[in-house]
Amino acid sequence: MADTVLFEFLHTEMVAELWAPDPDRGPRAQKIGLSILESMGFRVGQALGERLPQETLGFREELDVLKFLCKDLWVAVFHKQMDSLHTDHQGTYVLQDNSFPLLVPIASGLQYMEEAPKFLAFTCGLLCGALSTLGFQSLVTASVTALPACKFQVVIQKPRGPVPSLKEAL
Amino acid sequence: MADTVLFEFLHTEMVAELWAPDPDRGPRAQKIGLSILESMGFRVGQALGERLPQETLGFREELDVLKFLCKDLWVAVFHKQMDSLHTDHQGTYVLQDNSFPLLVPIASGLQYMEEAPKFLAFTCGLLCGALSTLGFQSLVTASVTALPACKFQVVIQKPRGPVPSLKEAL
Repeated sequence: MADTVLFEFLHTEMVAELWAPDPDRGPRAQKIGLSILESMGFRVGQALGERLPQETLGFREELDVLKFLCKDLWVAVFHKQMDSLHTDHQGTYVLQDNSFPLLVPIASGLQYMEEAPKFLAFTCGLLCGALSTLGFQSLVTASVTALPACKFQVVIQKPRGPVPSLKEAL
Repeated sequence: MADTVLFEFLHTEMVAELWAPDPDRGPRAQKIGLSILESMGFRVGQALGERLPQETLGFREELDVLKFLCKDLWVAVFHKQMDSLHTDHQGTYVLQDNSFPLLVPIASGLQYMEEAPKFLAFTCGLLCGALSTLGFQSLVTASVTALPACKFQVVIQKPRGPVPSLKEAL
């Protein structure tokens, strides 16, 4: 019964707690709050990643990993699949959820658009953490144009090649 | 797959975050942390309570409500039932879980006994919040004698009767 909404309730409380004005932390409280939410998401994503079946951990194709996030991981956390996945085939992926469950409660008006970032930080961390366990370093950001839809942009960080040797320029 | 452990991962992260030494809050940080965990649990419990089917909200017998917590609520959150429920039939109930999932990770040694309270605060709040939605004010405390077993003591607060009028005593 209430099982499917437990995560959402808990997330709501975490955001409320970490976003609340904290007189001890002053004006940097909200920035710290976002950063904490993101790092909590990262560690939960890592832990979820470690629970994956071994055969899943075996795949190493970027696109397979991203598809896995859009299907299996999203279903595990949000009980639905991501709505679309686009890529430029150069390491950038855009994952779109047309009705992101954590934004639905604030989706009734445009006046809440500015509230959106605090509801996205944890999930950005979650994606980044799961990718980390699967062997990919990434940058994950989120954007919202029309609540409750949102897009997560994942940029896979390529391992750096050898640093070109410096050449005399003068 | 990972669905069933999501709550536990998230709880672990919340405890780690709220228990961590916070230089801004000084020595009262851990006491504040416990209190925050408990109040988060309370609000999640209230929210879960509001999602119950209407016929469930109809019951008003204390013992039925406590049985509901031990079965339905525990299964929804921890995917298992409480192991036993005892009562003195005077408003005090002891709910025992012989292998409380949030204590299992620290159950490997007695040296972790002192760590237990931080893993119990949220759940005390959760029980108290669910009882609140069901119409009962309560005090909920937890105790651990042998990890990972623990007992939650619920004392239902009776509505006060009329205050006796003062009588002349001199």
